[in-house]
Amino acid sequence: MNPTLEIFSQGEEVVTGQTVDTNAAWLSTQAVNMGFTVTRHTAVGDKLDDLVALLREISARADCCICTGGLGPTSDDLTAEAVGKAFNLPLEFDAVAFEQIQHFFTLRNREMPESNRKQALFPQGVERIDNTWGTAPGFSLQAGRCWFAFVPGVPSEMRHLFEESIQATLARRFSLRPDILVTLKTVGIGESAIQECIRTVEIPAPVQLGFRAGPDEVQTKLLFPHDYPEADMIALVESVSEKLGDTVFAVDGLGQAGGDLVSVVDSLMRAGQHSLAVVETTSQGLLAAKCIGLPWLRESRYRQTLANLEPGEDLAVIAQSLAAEMRGSSGAAWILVQLYTGSLQAFHDKNQAIVLYNGLLTEDGFYQNTRSVAGPINVKQNQAALLALDLLRRHLQHKEL
Amino acid sequence: MNPTLEIFSQGEEVVTGQTVDTNAAWLSTQAVNMGFTVTRHTAVGDKLDDLVALLREISARADCCICTGGLGPTSDDLTAEAVGKAFNLPLEFDAVAFEQIQHFFTLRNREMPESNRKQALFPQGVERIDNTWGTAPGFSLQAGRCWFAFVPGVPSEMRHLFEESIQATLARRFSLRPDILVTLKTVGIGESAIQECIRTVEIPAPVQLGFRAGPDEVQTKLLFPHDYPEADMIALVESVSEKLGDTVFAVDGLGQAGGDLVSVVDSLMRAGQHSLAVVETTSQGLLAAKCIGLPWLRESRYRQTLANLEPGEDLAVIAQSLAAEMRGSSGAAWILVQLYTGSLQAFHDKNQAIVLYNGLLTEDGFYQNTRSVAGPINVKQNQAALLALDLLRRHLQHKEL
Repeated sequence: MNPTLEIFSQGEEVVTGQTVDTNAAWLSTQAVNMGFTVTRHTAVGDKLDDLVALLREISARADCCICTGGLGPTSDDLTAEAVGKAFNLPLEFDAVAFEQIQHFFTLRNREMPESNRKQALFPQGVERIDNTWGTAPGFSLQAGRCWFAFVPGVPSEMRHLFEESIQATLARRFSLRPDILVTLKTVGIGESAIQECIRTVEIPAPVQLGFRAGPDEVQTKLLFPHDYPEADMIALVESVSEKLGDTVFAVDGLGQAGGDLVSVVDSLMRAGQHSLAVVETTSQGLLAAKCIGLPWLRESRYRQTLANLEPGEDLAVIAQSLAAEMRGSSGAAWILVQLYTGSLQAFHDKNQAIVLYNGLLTEDGFYQNTRSVAGPINVKQNQAALLALDLLRRHLQHKEL
Repeated sequence: MNPTLEIFSQGEEVVTGQTVDTNAAWLSTQAVNMGFTVTRHTAVGDKLDDLVALLREISARADCCICTGGLGPTSDDLTAEAVGKAFNLPLEFDAVAFEQIQHFFTLRNREMPESNRKQALFPQGVERIDNTWGTAPGFSLQAGRCWFAFVPGVPSEMRHLFEESIQATLARRFSLRPDILVTLKTVGIGESAIQECIRTVEIPAPVQLGFRAGPDEVQTKLLFPHDYPEADMIALVESVSEKLGDTVFAVDGLGQAGGDLVSVVDSLMRAGQHSLAVVETTSQGLLAAKCIGLPWLRESRYRQTLANLEPGEDLAVIAQSLAAEMRGSSGAAWILVQLYTGSLQAFHDKNQAIVLYNGLLTEDGFYQNTRSVAGPINVKQNQAALLALDLLRRHLQHKEL
C-alpha cells in the first residue's frame, strides 16, 4: 500500500472560482510520480472554523498533506492561527524568520509594512521552510497520523519550496516505491484511432493503459508497477510504439524525456543547421508564434488571399511557386508552405472539415502531404500549425510523410 | 445570508493531477454570480466508500451541491451507486433515459455497447436531467439540507446542462440576491500601477475592490451589494474609469459586455470598414494568430532580420519604409509595424526588458508609441501582440497613443 496524500488549498479566490486551482493538479502529479496515492483535494475560503475542522479531519485520515495559501501578511491569512488552534499549539515569534522577511524588503529598498510581522509567527514546535522567493516562509509538522507541509499559494513560490525542500523531506520520511510511467506522444491521430491501432497488443494485467488528449498532442500512457521486469517493459513499449509507427514524435520515460513537438523539431533543425521560412494560411501566424525565439526560423508570412482555394486547383504548383518566391526573399534554405481547400464557411464552422496541404521545399526536393481537420476555428488553426511542424519533423527523421 | 453551495468533483484523473479541475472554478463563478456563497470544493477518486461518506457530510452541511463526473458507462463510474447507498435509495431502470442513450448511438450509426445500459440506472425518486450533448444524463435530488445536482465531468456537457437546466432550477428553488459586479479591463498597466492611479478614489465600505491579472488583460473589479443605489454605483465606476483613463478598453457590467481586446478591435475595424496588414517582430506571428478568421486582417509578416535593432537607429524611418512596402504588396489601407530595441539576449532573458516600438500608417497619417516589456520570452511575445493591438484600439477610439 502506498502512503496516502491529500491536497488542501486555502483562499477565497479559489472557492469563488476567480482562480483555477492549478496548484492542486501540479502537486498531485508530483506526489503520484513519487509513489503516493493521492486521495482527496479540498479547497475552502478564509474561515477559521472551517480550517480548524478540516485540519483535524485530515490529521486522522491521511499520511501526508500539502497545504497551499493563507500564509500572507493580511488579516484573512489564517493558516498559522488555524494550525495552532487545531492542534493546541500556541503561536510563537520566530526571530530568524523575521530577519528573513525584513531582508526581503531591504533588498528591494522598501520599508517592511508592520503587517508582515505576522508572517514570523508560527505554531510552537513546527519546522520552518525558508522561502527565498517571497516573504512568506512555509512550515511543516507531524499532527496525528499526518505529516503536514504548509506553503504559499503563489504558484512559483509553491513550486520552488516543493522542489527545493519538501520533495527531499518526503523521500526521506516515507517509504515510496513509485510506479514507472512511459508516455508515447503523437500528433495527427485521435484517441480512438490509437486504440484501434494497438488493439492487437496484449497489455498484461498489472500494466495500466491510459490516454490523454491535449490540444498539442495525444499521449498514450503505460503505467508499470515499480517491480515490473525491465526487459518486459521495454518490449511492451516497443510493441505499442511499432503499432503507432511514425505518428510517435517523442517518448517520455525509460530514461528519455522527449519534450513537445516544437522542442523535437528545434533539436533536429539545430543539429542539421537548417534554416526555414514559412507561408501560413490556416494557422495564421500561430506556427511562427509557437517557434518564438528559435534561431532557425527566418521568416513567416500569412496572406489572406491564399486562403480558401478551390479543390480543383493544383496545390503543388501553387506551393512550389510560393516556395521559390519565399526562398528568394528570405534566404532560408528550407521553405514550408501551408495551404488548404474548403470554403471560408467550412473553416469557420466547427461541424465542417477542411483539407490541409503542406509542402516542404529543401535542398534536395519537394515533399508534401494532406490532412483533414475539423472542429472550431481555433482548433483548426492549432492543428494546422502542428501538422505543418510535423511534416518537418517527419522529414528530419526520415519518416514517411 | 446567502445560501451555501459546494462543488464536488469525482474522478481519478482529477485527484491524480492529470486533469486540472476547471469545472470547479467555472461552476463557482456561476454560483457566486447568482448569489450563492461557495464554501468548499472537494475532489475524490473513484472509491465508493469515500463517495458515500462525502455525500452524507455534504447533505448535512450545505444548501446546494453541484457534483461533476462519475456518470459514464464504465465500472469506475460510481455516482448513481454512491447516491443510492448514501441515502438508502435503490437503483431503478429508467426506460426514457435508456431510449435517449440508444438514440445517441443510432444517430451516429453505432451500436450501443452493453455497458451503456448502466447509465439508465438512477436512485429511486431522483429527477433526471436530460443530456442531448452526450450519453450520460444527469440527475438531481434533495437529501437532508442539501439539493444535489449530478452532471457529467466533460466540461462542454457540464456547462450545457448547467446553462440549459440547472441554472433555472436554482433560481426557482433558492431565494437569491446576487451582488452586482462591474469589471474595468485594461492592458499595458500593472496591478500596482492601477492601485496607485485610483488611490484617491474613496471606495465606500460595502463595495469590494479587487484585481485580477491575466495574461491578456488586467481586471479591476468593483462588487456592489444587490441593493446599492444605482446612481452611486454609476458615479463610482465613472470615477475609477476616469482615473484609469485611456488604458480601459472595455467595461463588463452595468448592462455592458465589453469582450476582450481582440473583439473590441474587431468591432471597431468592421464598423469603419478598415483593412490591415502587419509587420511583426517581437510577437512573431502571435498578433495575426490572435485575429484568426477576422476579415480585415489581410497579411502579416515576421522577419527575423528586423529583430534586435540598436537603440541608436531611427525606428520611425525604418517603420515608415516597411509600412510603405507592405501597403504596396498587401493592398491593405492600414499598416501596423512592430519593432523593438534591445539585445537578443535581453529578449530571451526574463530579468531584462526590451523597448517595443509600434507604428501605424493610416490614410491620414503615421502614429507611433513605445512601451517597455519584461518577463519570460513568451510573456514579452504576448504583451507585444496586445500592445500593438492596443495602439490600433486607441487610434480607432480617438484616444491618446
